[in-house]
Amino acid sequence: MKGKFITFEGGEGVGKTTQLAMIRSYLESQGVDAVFLREPGGNAISEKIRGIILDVDNVGMTGMCEAMLYSASRAQLVEAVIKPALQEGKLVVCDRFIDSTYAYQGVARGLGADKVDILNRLACGDILPDLTVFLDLPPALAFARKGGADASDRLEQEGDNFHQNVYEGYLQASRLYPDRIVRVDCSKDAMSVNKSILELLRQRGII
Amino acid sequence: MKGKFITFEGGEGVGKTTQLAMIRSYLESQGVDAVFLREPGGNAISEKIRGIILDVDNVGMTGMCEAMLYSASRAQLVEAVIKPALQEGKLVVCDRFIDSTYAYQGVARGLGADKVDILNRLACGDILPDLTVFLDLPPALAFARKGGADASDRLEQEGDNFHQNVYEGYLQASRLYPDRIVRVDCSKDAMSVNKSILELLRQRGII
Repeated sequence: MKGKFITFEGGEGVGKTTQLAMIRSYLESQGVDAVFLREPGGNAISEKIRGIILDVDNVGMTGMCEAMLYSASRAQLVEAVIKPALQEGKLVVCDRFIDSTYAYQGVARGLGADKVDILNRLACGDILPDLTVFLDLPPALAFARKGGADASDRLEQEGDNFHQNVYEGYLQASRLYPDRIVRVDCSKDAMSVNKSILELLRQRGII
Repeated sequence: MKGKFITFEGGEGVGKTTQLAMIRSYLESQGVDAVFLREPGGNAISEKIRGIILDVDNVGMTGMCEAMLYSASRAQLVEAVIKPALQEGKLVVCDRFIDSTYAYQGVARGLGADKVDILNRLACGDILPDLTVFLDLPPALAFARKGGADASDRLEQEGDNFHQNVYEGYLQASRLYPDRIVRVDCSKDAMSVNKSILELLRQRGII
């Protein structure tokens, strides 16, 4: 693979959307040939799967069903979009990836890390991120800053405990994969966070 | 588990729909408390997943994505419908189950038996069929009888080779699980086949 693959992770309200927009703008200004994707989604089939996962009508979806839908969406994205882009030498930037499944389904839904690891491996094969930026902000701070949680999709409607468990899940993942997952302190303002991220990408030889 | 769980398997055109209708009619006439399900489907969430799997617009779906969608649908069906019904002592009859994934995705799509076994285990936990009726009719005979293949969904649109490989997959599965999977010769007329199936269900103490 000639290209580089980076992913962004973090719970609700940490400022992920803003940071991704800033990174995108920077990369475009530098003429970097980058592909921006989001999970679940990033291609027609995966977007349809996204519709089922996030539909608020689908109450009662089991943790395993949810994890397998994310994995199905990921398998399609990896094979149809990420792998070809990396082979063309592009920089692939993905909003959420395997560590979301670890934190949300493996830890917060209680499915267990081992089962999620198996699904992640089946979905990705040998395509793993070169770098994962974990936007680190405890949920209490994140929601205080947003003025309360959004509730526009099925996962955002979960309670405080769920989001705290997601956060713990991310901390666990970052301890398990310390080389790949780098924590970026998001308690500061968006410009400072953006500076830290760009610095990290430079250190890793990605930009 | 107090109830019994039986599944029906077979390729396109073997007469599965007819046989299931006949079994259903028989069980109802005998006052058996049975639940009839189909895969993928059998509950609201799984039916939505079915829609994505069978949609003819979703060309280019990878074998792994397809297998994971079937597994997601199955995980939901097992937990939300099959397990509670078995706990209530009901007879559960399912049109397709794990052996379809083995034959269609594992063998015909070339995903490999080991990967499909992992997904099947994750989706089902300890809920396995007490008996699987494999309606055995080589594809050439099945299509000749139907006057050609249907092409109303994405899987039925596959070519002859695909359907021959599905058939080989079923034969492999029935050799792997000779106690659970019983082959019923479907080259005879529907009434004779029905008689064989009822005889089998009696032998196994299911009816």
